[in-house]
Amino acid sequence: MAIKFEILHECKQTRARVGRLTTPHGVVNTPVFMPVGTQATVKAVPPRDLKEIGAEIILGNTYHLYLRPGHDLVEEAGGLHQFMNWDGSILTDSGGFQVFSLSSLNRISEEGVLFHSHIDGSRHFFSPERAIAIENALGADIIMAFDECTPYPCEHSYAKEAMERTHRWAMRSKQAHKRPDTQALFGIIQGSTYADLRQESAKFLVDLDFPGYGIGGLSTGEPKPLMYEMLEVTVPLIPKDKPRYLMGVGSPDCLMEGTIRGVDMFDCVLPTRVARNGTAFTSQGRVVIRNATYARDFSPLDPNCDCYACRNFTRAYLRHLIKAQEILAYQLLSIHNLRYLISIMQGLRQAILEDRTLEYVRSVLSSYDSEPYNL
Amino acid sequence: MAIKFEILHECKQTRARVGRLTTPHGVVNTPVFMPVGTQATVKAVPPRDLKEIGAEIILGNTYHLYLRPGHDLVEEAGGLHQFMNWDGSILTDSGGFQVFSLSSLNRISEEGVLFHSHIDGSRHFFSPERAIAIENALGADIIMAFDECTPYPCEHSYAKEAMERTHRWAMRSKQAHKRPDTQALFGIIQGSTYADLRQESAKFLVDLDFPGYGIGGLSTGEPKPLMYEMLEVTVPLIPKDKPRYLMGVGSPDCLMEGTIRGVDMFDCVLPTRVARNGTAFTSQGRVVIRNATYARDFSPLDPNCDCYACRNFTRAYLRHLIKAQEILAYQLLSIHNLRYLISIMQGLRQAILEDRTLEYVRSVLSSYDSEPYNL
Repeated sequence: MAIKFEILHECKQTRARVGRLTTPHGVVNTPVFMPVGTQATVKAVPPRDLKEIGAEIILGNTYHLYLRPGHDLVEEAGGLHQFMNWDGSILTDSGGFQVFSLSSLNRISEEGVLFHSHIDGSRHFFSPERAIAIENALGADIIMAFDECTPYPCEHSYAKEAMERTHRWAMRSKQAHKRPDTQALFGIIQGSTYADLRQESAKFLVDLDFPGYGIGGLSTGEPKPLMYEMLEVTVPLIPKDKPRYLMGVGSPDCLMEGTIRGVDMFDCVLPTRVARNGTAFTSQGRVVIRNATYARDFSPLDPNCDCYACRNFTRAYLRHLIKAQEILAYQLLSIHNLRYLISIMQGLRQAILEDRTLEYVRSVLSSYDSEPYNL
Repeated sequence: MAIKFEILHECKQTRARVGRLTTPHGVVNTPVFMPVGTQATVKAVPPRDLKEIGAEIILGNTYHLYLRPGHDLVEEAGGLHQFMNWDGSILTDSGGFQVFSLSSLNRISEEGVLFHSHIDGSRHFFSPERAIAIENALGADIIMAFDECTPYPCEHSYAKEAMERTHRWAMRSKQAHKRPDTQALFGIIQGSTYADLRQESAKFLVDLDFPGYGIGGLSTGEPKPLMYEMLEVTVPLIPKDKPRYLMGVGSPDCLMEGTIRGVDMFDCVLPTRVARNGTAFTSQGRVVIRNATYARDFSPLDPNCDCYACRNFTRAYLRHLIKAQEILAYQLLSIHNLRYLISIMQGLRQAILEDRTLEYVRSVLSSYDSEPYNL
């Protein structure tokens, strides 16, 4: 087995639990937020900074790495860990989401998906077998089955059709997986926003006995309460001893709402994407640092944060950097936003251990003096 | 006196010397290369990385900081050191060079220069008094007199006229300087590529007894031998106990050629600018990392370099980052290029102390297997 997952404590108030996920590259304390390193780099954040802010596992995108620099090149470099010099754990997605959202002119068949590169328009074909072969070459500690991710909203009939295809692709993904001893393959539960489909999908995939489960196709535009409802009907069907990964979710409120519904793992490009746009997540709420109100604000971005940006620079300086389009702005805000989410997860873990999860969540949410993170 | 300059050793082979320049923010070992932090940041390089690569003094651009965020704001922040969180030494130029090269529609009079901002076209006026007031507000350890920087080529008659105006502006700059106890004001020797003017300018400014001297208006397109000739006629006229600063020069060969002609300080945007373009300075010569030849080169960028980029990443990875336009590429290549120039200066200092300066220069130049740095 590539991974080991132990539950250290189950919250007495909620479905939240604290776990320890051990991969060939070390221990990941859950619930965990995983920074996204799409193209073999978490944008603007070197590995040493990721370590400093407490990242234990990051994500790589199979679709992007396949197109550039190519999974064969990454394999030749010794795998993704070595290529990007990250010695912590890595999870790769299967490319399913990107094939459907980023590429153009895709044609779906039972066999797989024909798509055109978003970089140069070249034609490519992903099947479950192909996606897993690429993920095997990349060498992440956790890899994801190839799935069809439906957009929101989606008719029940199509959601069912796509889910059933995803199930067949999950079996083929499992069959194709060449390195189960060093890479854990997770199945992905689909079913759009339909409770019956989510439950059917969870049951089907649980029967296939994957070492962990992704919950995919959420955070695609549906209202947050609907996402939470889907978690509530899905999570209880996943065996307790398997990690549950809510894919593509990373706003502070969703991390907390997901955790209390039993989710162990999250990832999202949000913290680094909004950072490059000049928006910070802070313990006081969202800070749009470009705003004139911060021009002469010589206080730290977040007085409660211990990151390099908050320890060393002022809001006035960060605003100047953003206005002047200086690269250092993107570095500092990315470090901070990731650190903020990782701190929230650390706080959650501590609160779960002490059975005061709800108090922690309420306290974090109530300290936001601006709108919550509807980003 | 704001600064103290001691000569520790004079080379027996050349005019090179090893010195120790002490400013209110610490010791600067000379000859020194100063990274340029135009807009209150060395592009893509946080202060902690500057420290790690051995930077002791950096440069700030008065023109840019005046326009954005404004010198008054920087002063309110506690000065440039505090604003950008750099506790080492800082030198600011006077804006003279940028007013003539970056802004548009400038009109020169005896009083000063009327120019339009390159950012928003707004009208501004710099006089020696104004430039020095701005530099006083920024609070750098070393500030430069306001000068007129002529382009190359330049007629003798205009070069003489501009030089004489620069001399009058130097006197006014000195007169206007409000903080001589904490900021050392350097005069700037002009005279284009004319030996008689350079000598006249050096003599005039030396009579004004500045604590240090800039040699300006070079590296503006003239052949390198002509620049070296200008150094040879100028440097001997500057008192030995004063630091000599060759402005805007930073290719590896010019740093060495300048040092053996008695220059103590250099600055240039070159290492960080070419880095963002994917070009590295290395001990083996110039490496254009974008080239396909590096696609599967899993060796470090420079096997003789101790920087974070060379210790941790391969050429193949750096090439991938540049091709994918990842910010991390700009960070890593900027760190490396600065480290390379700072290493050359460390090597030069050691060689000067051991009276083997020429051997060192020859050995560095002969190890380049590609064209030298005609950038």
